[in-house]
Amino acid sequence: DRELVLIAGPCQLESADHAEMIAGRLVEICATTGARLIFKASFDKANRSSLSGKRGVGIDAGLKILDGVRASFGVPVLTDVHIPDQCADVATVVDVLQIPAFLCRQTDLLLAAGRTGAAVNIKKGQFLAPWDMDNVAEKVASTGNDRILLTERGTSFGYNTLVADMRSLPRMAQTGYPVIMDATHSVQQPGGLGGATGGQREFAPVMARAAVSLGIAGVFIETHEDPDNAPSDGPNMIPLDRMEGLIASLMDFDRLAKADPIRI
Amino acid sequence: DRELVLIAGPCQLESADHAEMIAGRLVEICATTGARLIFKASFDKANRSSLSGKRGVGIDAGLKILDGVRASFGVPVLTDVHIPDQCADVATVVDVLQIPAFLCRQTDLLLAAGRTGAAVNIKKGQFLAPWDMDNVAEKVASTGNDRILLTERGTSFGYNTLVADMRSLPRMAQTGYPVIMDATHSVQQPGGLGGATGGQREFAPVMARAAVSLGIAGVFIETHEDPDNAPSDGPNMIPLDRMEGLIASLMDFDRLAKADPIRI
Amino acid sequence: DRELVLIAGPCQLESADHAEMIAGRLVEICATTGARLIFKASFDKANRSSLSGKRGVGIDAGLKILDGVRASFGVPVLTDVHIPDQCADVATVVDVLQIPAFLCRQTDLLLAAGRTGAAVNIKKGQFLAPWDMDNVAEKVASTGNDRILLTERGTSFGYNTLVADMRSLPRMAQTGYPVIMDATHSVQQPGGLGGATGGQREFAPVMARAAVSLGIAGVFIETHEDPDNAPSDGPNMIPLDRMEGLIASLMDFDRLAKADPIRI
Amino acid sequence: DRELVLIAGPCQLESADHAEMIAGRLVEICATTGARLIFKASFDKANRSSLSGKRGVGIDAGLKILDGVRASFGVPVLTDVHIPDQCADVATVVDVLQIPAFLCRQTDLLLAAGRTGAAVNIKKGQFLAPWDMDNVAEKVASTGNDRILLTERGTSFGYNTLVADMRSLPRMAQTGYPVIMDATHSVQQPGGLGGATGGQREFAPVMARAAVSLGIAGVFIETHEDPDNAPSDGPNMIPLDRMEGLIASLMDFDRLAKADPIRI
Repeated sequence: DRELVLIAGPCQLESADHAEMIAGRLVEICATTGARLIFKASFDKANRSSLSGKRGVGIDAGLKILDGVRASFGVPVLTDVHIPDQCADVATVVDVLQIPAFLCRQTDLLLAAGRTGAAVNIKKGQFLAPWDMDNVAEKVASTGNDRILLTERGTSFGYNTLVADMRSLPRMAQTGYPVIMDATHSVQQPGGLGGATGGQREFAPVMARAAVSLGIAGVFIETHEDPDNAPSDGPNMIPLDRMEGLIASLMDFDRLAKADPIRI
Repeated sequence: DRELVLIAGPCQLESADHAEMIAGRLVEICATTGARLIFKASFDKANRSSLSGKRGVGIDAGLKILDGVRASFGVPVLTDVHIPDQCADVATVVDVLQIPAFLCRQTDLLLAAGRTGAAVNIKKGQFLAPWDMDNVAEKVASTGNDRILLTERGTSFGYNTLVADMRSLPRMAQTGYPVIMDATHSVQQPGGLGGATGGQREFAPVMARAAVSLGIAGVFIETHEDPDNAPSDGPNMIPLDRMEGLIASLMDFDRLAKADPIRI
Repeated sequence: DRELVLIAGPCQLESADHAEMIAGRLVEICATTGARLIFKASFDKANRSSLSGKRGVGIDAGLKILDGVRASFGVPVLTDVHIPDQCADVATVVDVLQIPAFLCRQTDLLLAAGRTGAAVNIKKGQFLAPWDMDNVAEKVASTGNDRILLTERGTSFGYNTLVADMRSLPRMAQTGYPVIMDATHSVQQPGGLGGATGGQREFAPVMARAAVSLGIAGVFIETHEDPDNAPSDGPNMIPLDRMEGLIASLMDFDRLAKADPIRI
Repeated sequence: DRELVLIAGPCQLESADHAEMIAGRLVEICATTGARLIFKASFDKANRSSLSGKRGVGIDAGLKILDGVRASFGVPVLTDVHIPDQCADVATVVDVLQIPAFLCRQTDLLLAAGRTGAAVNIKKGQFLAPWDMDNVAEKVASTGNDRILLTERGTSFGYNTLVADMRSLPRMAQTGYPVIMDATHSVQQPGGLGGATGGQREFAPVMARAAVSLGIAGVFIETHEDPDNAPSDGPNMIPLDRMEGLIASLMDFDRLAKADPIRI
């Protein structure tokens, strides 16, 4: 029951300067608040709502940027993988491979990620129940790699809406693996803008606080200095200048929650 | 932003002795923990899953018991009403009239409850969105009575399952009325036992804590000294002997939440 | 496996002339197409989204109008009841008492309706599974009245949306009671217009045809000569001048379905 | 509005003999009933619920079997692809590349499939609304390939359950692409058996008939001579010996529906 992990960063990598600016600020915030940082950013948005959405800088440029962030700030970095062949290369640079929610049942991807020996953060599919993640995690664990994290990021709830079921967090924790709450994706409105995904940014702190109060391992929050002009996920990202207040507040709830564990 | 209200009691009134035993214990717990108690119990379970479920002691015997609890312990009492004609009589004894979730759109019942001048706690229907409660509350407010509480008790999520959406709490709070989290009904599994409603008692503290961390006005928790043998809602009630620990814990989160308000 | 029943009429009674105009047209349509008509209209919209929605002509005026339709056209009539006390009076005029979906678990209402000896059409609550209706029907049947109809009108599916699950129809038919598809309410968008319920009128024929193809007893369709100016449910009612084509088409599917029964 | 297409076959390829036995029977059934056959089987079940589920014969053996079926019976064949690199190879043998539902937003897979020039059948993700498929189809169409089919296979509805929304069929048809109803996957209960997916086989004919009555292009039905002992999807497959009766019945509804088109 260590201090809360903060997995944070921009939705997608834009440039080395941009990544380092955000990482630098997050490092400061974590130093101040006591959260443990994992820097997150994607090199490829492989499942955009429409073809017109920006894909990102690509794997080569992306890994170079992530390697730079890692070296400059001494923080672990996380990025998502989309096909099995990417896993080994990505793991040469990245500390945590992330399995996107839509791909969380793709056996070969899970096995390839597990075999790298890197930590693997699996997002729970919007179409899965919390208990379905037992089998998902077992696929990774079958490779002998038990450095697994499980992330709640919302469940389909009618059309173009997600709901975050708080029961999911203690239920997934029964696996024994650390559980993360993705506070910014769980307030997405998939397809809600027609050609793009909408979001309810104002509810991300609500999701984060409710989840942290349950004593989870970490929280996942995408952030950007100018979300309304970000290349993706703007409607649900938290403005960078509001992160310090948010994380400081979450740390208070984290300390209280970890001093008073809740069991199901 | 006063101390957390605890609306608690057995699902249904069984006898004067039973009500007083539970009320007495809850009074002690609130004295110790600082929660503000409203004693809750139903005189009639008017919408049981099946005809074989016990209905309760009836309105006359029920009001007498509630009056006794009120007099003996000096606590406000709450009970639910089912048809407009009951409201005036019930309000002669009861401090808070409760509108059951299935009935939260019945205009005449809302108006009759409002006209008594008593406080009115409206459970959000399992079939409504949080913002739909604006119009529901307005029906009561149209009587000139603004002593309204709004309660989240879960939303339909597929068959025989509810989900409690934490966004509902700050959204309903935008009405300006106090918002209550019903921690025991939101973990029901309606119809889940065939002829009766099932429940996941183990998740009630999870729901309560997540909600209280958001700075709500109160929490609604049904309790019984022997839930497995209670005449109704046993699968989701909290054992009476676990209430003190639960409420004490919730008060810690309540204090932290109210010192650090969250806004949407 | 007799010819399809058509339960149809305006959402709410507006005047005797209006009711007779619509009833007259529906009688002609059923004569032409072979459907068996039950005229439906409500005297009170007891659960409008907001207080500003029109309630209707009231029980006395409403029953008089329904009695007139019955006498003038020799068709059975159906209307909904909201509290137990209404049932006996309504049954003096009306052939089928309808239990609104929100009220389908109110035991006293079901018993009072059953005791009249009139047929009772129970709308499945938006919050219930098809199999939950077994217990609901049993409440009515316990009065010795087995003239029961069960109606699918959509299930909650996220916020402000319903979905009609076709599995519901054969599953409810396992009770042995006739099953009706409510094609116009199942395409409602409850609360979807803020202060009123929206709807997707264009999908009502889709719901009707899919359901009739499964060999159900009847279809429920609200209609109005000018839906956009109707006092309630305009967004989902079918224009009266499109009813003949719709019913004629449904009768073709009804004949085919009843010649080729589907069993689960 | 040509005759109904039947996309059918076993969930997974087991052997050449097995595939030819089933294909042969389906060819006979289609000759008798007038349906147009596309033979379907998977060479790899890439997203099993658990690691213990059988994966299949693999791409090389699978394509050889599919090529044999194609040659022996002169029927088009369909199989699913999971990563972009498979598309070109698979398209050398297969007439229709199928995009699995979980993968329907993976841009690179859609583009790679489109670029083969083969027809592409895209299953709508359980997490998508019907209108979200406009953007999905556009990804394939951007390659210059408009030989696209869109398939409804159910939408997440609470946990471990799907619901098939009939509105989806005419809404997806607004794209101008042929729409297919997957009658056997839409009655799955994902994860419903703990380590495997359950199903409600008895409802597959219900789904098929309701959908065909709306005048869709085709129906997708997995079948096996002994579903209870099939290596995957047994709980929802239709026994082979019941296919002739089912398809004959569906053809009656198809003829009626296509003579009487429904428009939204």
